[in-house]
Amino acid sequence: MSGNTTGLLFTVTSFGESHGPAIGCVVDGCPPGLAISAEEIQQELDRRKPGTSRHVTQRREPDAVEILSGVYEGRTTGTPIALLIRNTDQRSKDYGNIAETFRPGHADYTYWHKYGVRDPRGGGRSSARETAVRVAAGAIAKKWLQQRYGVVIRGHMTQIGEVAIPFKSWDVVNTNPFFAADDSVVPQLEDYMDSIRKSLDSVGARLRVVAENVPVGWGEPVFDRLDADIAHAMMSINAVKGVEIGAGFACVTQRGSEHGDELTPEGFASNHAGGILGGISTGQDIEVSMAIKPTSSIAQPRRSIDKQGNPIVMETHGRHDPCVGIRATPIAEAMLALVLMDHALRHRAQCGDVAVETPQIPGRIS
Amino acid sequence: MSGNTTGLLFTVTSFGESHGPAIGCVVDGCPPGLAISAEEIQQELDRRKPGTSRHVTQRREPDAVEILSGVYEGRTTGTPIALLIRNTDQRSKDYGNIAETFRPGHADYTYWHKYGVRDPRGGGRSSARETAVRVAAGAIAKKWLQQRYGVVIRGHMTQIGEVAIPFKSWDVVNTNPFFAADDSVVPQLEDYMDSIRKSLDSVGARLRVVAENVPVGWGEPVFDRLDADIAHAMMSINAVKGVEIGAGFACVTQRGSEHGDELTPEGFASNHAGGILGGISTGQDIEVSMAIKPTSSIAQPRRSIDKQGNPIVMETHGRHDPCVGIRATPIAEAMLALVLMDHALRHRAQCGDVAVETPQIPGRIS
Amino acid sequence: MSGNTTGLLFTVTSFGESHGPAIGCVVDGCPPGLAISAEEIQQELDRRKPGTSRHVTQRREPDAVEILSGVYEGRTTGTPIALLIRNTDQRSKDYGNIAETFRPGHADYTYWHKYGVRDPRGGGRSSARETAVRVAAGAIAKKWLQQRYGVVIRGHMTQIGEVAIPFKSWDVVNTNPFFAADDSVVPQLEDYMDSIRKSLDSVGARLRVVAENVPVGWGEPVFDRLDADIAHAMMSINAVKGVEIGAGFACVTQRGSEHGDELTPEGFASNHAGGILGGISTGQDIEVSMAIKPTSSIAQPRRSIDKQGNPIVMETHGRHDPCVGIRATPIAEAMLALVLMDHALRHRAQCGDVAVETPQIPGRIS
Amino acid sequence: MSGNTTGLLFTVTSFGESHGPAIGCVVDGCPPGLAISAEEIQQELDRRKPGTSRHVTQRREPDAVEILSGVYEGRTTGTPIALLIRNTDQRSKDYGNIAETFRPGHADYTYWHKYGVRDPRGGGRSSARETAVRVAAGAIAKKWLQQRYGVVIRGHMTQIGEVAIPFKSWDVVNTNPFFAADDSVVPQLEDYMDSIRKSLDSVGARLRVVAENVPVGWGEPVFDRLDADIAHAMMSINAVKGVEIGAGFACVTQRGSEHGDELTPEGFASNHAGGILGGISTGQDIEVSMAIKPTSSIAQPRRSIDKQGNPIVMETHGRHDPCVGIRATPIAEAMLALVLMDHALRHRAQCGDVAVETPQIPGRIS
Repeated sequence: MSGNTTGLLFTVTSFGESHGPAIGCVVDGCPPGLAISAEEIQQELDRRKPGTSRHVTQRREPDAVEILSGVYEGRTTGTPIALLIRNTDQRSKDYGNIAETFRPGHADYTYWHKYGVRDPRGGGRSSARETAVRVAAGAIAKKWLQQRYGVVIRGHMTQIGEVAIPFKSWDVVNTNPFFAADDSVVPQLEDYMDSIRKSLDSVGARLRVVAENVPVGWGEPVFDRLDADIAHAMMSINAVKGVEIGAGFACVTQRGSEHGDELTPEGFASNHAGGILGGISTGQDIEVSMAIKPTSSIAQPRRSIDKQGNPIVMETHGRHDPCVGIRATPIAEAMLALVLMDHALRHRAQCGDVAVETPQIPGRIS
Repeated sequence: MSGNTTGLLFTVTSFGESHGPAIGCVVDGCPPGLAISAEEIQQELDRRKPGTSRHVTQRREPDAVEILSGVYEGRTTGTPIALLIRNTDQRSKDYGNIAETFRPGHADYTYWHKYGVRDPRGGGRSSARETAVRVAAGAIAKKWLQQRYGVVIRGHMTQIGEVAIPFKSWDVVNTNPFFAADDSVVPQLEDYMDSIRKSLDSVGARLRVVAENVPVGWGEPVFDRLDADIAHAMMSINAVKGVEIGAGFACVTQRGSEHGDELTPEGFASNHAGGILGGISTGQDIEVSMAIKPTSSIAQPRRSIDKQGNPIVMETHGRHDPCVGIRATPIAEAMLALVLMDHALRHRAQCGDVAVETPQIPGRIS
Repeated sequence: MSGNTTGLLFTVTSFGESHGPAIGCVVDGCPPGLAISAEEIQQELDRRKPGTSRHVTQRREPDAVEILSGVYEGRTTGTPIALLIRNTDQRSKDYGNIAETFRPGHADYTYWHKYGVRDPRGGGRSSARETAVRVAAGAIAKKWLQQRYGVVIRGHMTQIGEVAIPFKSWDVVNTNPFFAADDSVVPQLEDYMDSIRKSLDSVGARLRVVAENVPVGWGEPVFDRLDADIAHAMMSINAVKGVEIGAGFACVTQRGSEHGDELTPEGFASNHAGGILGGISTGQDIEVSMAIKPTSSIAQPRRSIDKQGNPIVMETHGRHDPCVGIRATPIAEAMLALVLMDHALRHRAQCGDVAVETPQIPGRIS
Repeated sequence: MSGNTTGLLFTVTSFGESHGPAIGCVVDGCPPGLAISAEEIQQELDRRKPGTSRHVTQRREPDAVEILSGVYEGRTTGTPIALLIRNTDQRSKDYGNIAETFRPGHADYTYWHKYGVRDPRGGGRSSARETAVRVAAGAIAKKWLQQRYGVVIRGHMTQIGEVAIPFKSWDVVNTNPFFAADDSVVPQLEDYMDSIRKSLDSVGARLRVVAENVPVGWGEPVFDRLDADIAHAMMSINAVKGVEIGAGFACVTQRGSEHGDELTPEGFASNHAGGILGGISTGQDIEVSMAIKPTSSIAQPRRSIDKQGNPIVMETHGRHDPCVGIRATPIAEAMLALVLMDHALRHRAQCGDVAVETPQIPGRIS
């Protein structure tokens, strides 16, 4: 299938440009009978939407989602669920001057070379606005995973620029504009972000996403390992430059005697594996971490070229997030939900729906 | 498709267990007319094969590849290419004691829970032996990419445990057992590995893989971004726990004014993007880095459980690599080749075969 | 991918219920640079729309299509094209009585058993209304095939019930309500259809679809043969019960000396193959024929059961086509266009864009 | 995925040329725990193998299958099952004269134009020899469907040339060389086939395949309807030119009052639908019929051209089936098994494994 569909059984097909009439997606393969409403999806969208604090873009979009199909009398019917978000705050005048040039760090150059044509308004298809539909689709996956298996998926920011953010409690993550799990760091972050903004610059970030209560057995080796599909999903998010599972890059200096998680009758003694062994979930928490690059659009003069190859200098003014990582937490949660749901369905297709039982009976015919 | 096929247009379907009759793969979608021989494929396999130095497993497999189909009079015909490698040095007696128990850090536990049955001999399907067929398939992709577009794909080790390995020259990478790009570090590495082995332990590693001469335009946003598919491919390799593109995790502390690569009439002024913007190749080098966990099989006593959940203590003796990362370089090269070839074909399907020309003509009908 | 996406490279993802808010689709993988407008798509939709004569359903839907994405300044950009058709004439009161029962010949019984829930309004997802989006997507494929390769795709009715309709000329097909290629038969068809309607019954039909100027070389053996994908596409249309390529079932009594098309320096001497040999296009016309069952909704009393398994008698009144085959011609054309376009892209992915040249050079590297 | 893999969850990837070293396939996605042996697969292969009577090709291949992976201690492990059949009776001298010419009715012309190169020995990849691996893979699907759901899949010949073969009993189908379900017709068929052979000609055939005990609910509308996937599978078999489900082309002249199967508390009153409504199985027998063209290789002089376009006359001598339809019955059974197994897995992925229960509970969360 083409590049705008993800998943094998629980598929999301995304469409829409930043400043076109609408963005949206089609979610196919959702099990029937799930209670879901536009309001529930909207709640997830509102966690990601712009304009919620001075630290994110001031573009004001209601991002109101409409369910076009696949839900009848409040429940999914098993048929495709189409979700539509109309674009309302488009201000394309802000972007008119970039049609003939390539913004550094953006996809302008590559889209133009690939397709020979591009929609320059607000980055067109390459805008992070597209990720809103992932959050909407992810809301469905999150709910099903929670209802069917008790899976809980949550994310938080672990670092912005030089500022590390310790994990204290999930309780405060949604009560501050940074998705920080330690609200004592919030004043420091506010000052830090203000200084970044004043210096007309931007900064990178690091996120962590965790899925709890994932049953043992999800993942399809050798290629469609659960961790491989998670890496694919996270790296498909705009601005992500690195992905780690469990110990991640820290494993380079670890010894086998430290990294390999021992088993005890009470469970695993540690979780350096990040909840995945051999590409299959272990029943422990799925632990994912990712790096997000600094926003490319900054108000400093930067060198670039125009379509004819002439050198130019450009500054990008407008309503940009000084740290795109801030709003990425709900997106990363959504992508993890999409991957897990796809694998939940793949697992029960081949192996039946017995992963939650322990112990399984060897020799069963699935 | 199921989990043992990768790629959309240039697909590799892998099969085989470590101690079964054979491992192999079917490569489908290869363009016709490519000159390829078993000998060329064998050369790549020999770079990965066990027993080449005291620092890798002493299992001795010739890993002789046979081409079963798809090649006629020395050239590919466009039909599926089946590659077969018979297993010869199986010694299943070495592994008999593990059928009832789960080795820490291995996939024994997850395979057994997922499938309710598993082939315990040498790790069965979860053995890194499977990666030999990826190297074989990758040899075909490498050759086509080189012949058709001049793409060159090479990898080298950048760190083993605490020992960083600087990049000096590609010339020495294949002349030492560590795929080190600086042979002055080799004596230090030999001592280091000897000490690891003597301590009955193992250690992690970090690799870098680079693709040069990739045309601008490869990659299929928004989900099948080139970087997303590379992350998928690398994370599907046994023991990989982290993947970076370009600056990777270093971008967390970068400013936008540093990270965003400026453009000049002579080309990009830097390559923090790692050759990919918006999920599409920029024409610069594709830069990928990955972390590989320490070998799980070590000769120290470790806690685990048996199938009935009783606590046990196990030591894994046998012929194991003290650093599985060492032999991973050819595998990572192969996986990068598979992804790039798939995307080369996907690109010319949609956009025609014009990416190599500059400038493209806006408004063309592809 | 799930069941509502078709195609590998040129994909169509369909959504929507007969009486929900909207139907639509996402077309992904379209080459960039193609000039396309909502008006052009609308023209194809209007050929299929209800209410155009007394011989089809009197439901009146404008079926107005909106392009939501993927087109910028009148040309495709290579990004997904979302098409939306709002439902306006829903009259769900007509259908309320069927929620608890299963209409004979309809999908009510199977949807309910499969999903455990169904949208009963107008057949929900199983309504032929869904095929409107196929016609819309097909309009894009038709135009690209015509512009890029000169391919022309046309269909006509060859039989309604007992009345065979000879082929006279393509010119009259769109000037009568039956898509008949011989307008002298039209009065007979009108009388025939009136008598069917008066007898409160319905009748089957047979269609033929032809693609001219298809280059030699499209089709991907052994499974994704061009004819196999055409059969899949046609059989996926509501009410189709049989598909033939070329001679079709007539080949059962043919001799090899008759059926096997001889080659001459001027081309093939006949076309029993229907333009496909070994699953690959020959360069001759692609010839497809199909059978469409009589409309299941008729105003006669019919036996059925309710959800509890009790026997009932039901008559289906309302606005139904007495011959669903009549409006199927544009749908079959659209499906053939979708298959051909997908295969055009698949072919040039693997073999390059050289199929139109004759002769090819053996030994080329594609 | 490329054209040599079929299925979404239960996939078969086929490889091999008629006169290359081997043919074979990789079966991926098979549920674990199924008891299967090479002997069981061999039994199905022996039903199709050449040389069993004077009415089929006299090529003598043992067609001995080897299981290379995916089965441990007699049971499937859930990992890919590779099946290998070495080619032994290749006699490539028989075929040397055809490398420069195109046999009428064969794929020589299209393969050469598509790929620019072809393996001419015995038809290479386009040979019906490839279908042996489908039968081998189908044996696994057949067994699982039978064990898990009690599904029984059987086929028989219904017509050879002008000779219709009534259905009397399944018991005799495997006791005569024609897969006839009425052995009283066998002497007539033997005479008929002898006369065809003496006239140096060949003839077409019609087959019927039936699946019993298929649960209600399999099939994935709107595109991957069960009937659409069956049509795809059957049309992918060499020489098939038409496919029917249920009433098939007979529905053209049927009335809705006749065709639409009524429901009663005891079940459906008829089966014109062929066991599928709205693309989903009804629980009735799945009924499929197909037309197979006459063998293209005949010993009569036929007009053709060579690669340079010069006119030639060729006769095809050698060991050809005078009616390729005769050996097609096991192939059609196998393809139906592959489709049903894939849909069984797809169904339980989305809807859970409850289709066998009646009635289902509306509102369940699957």
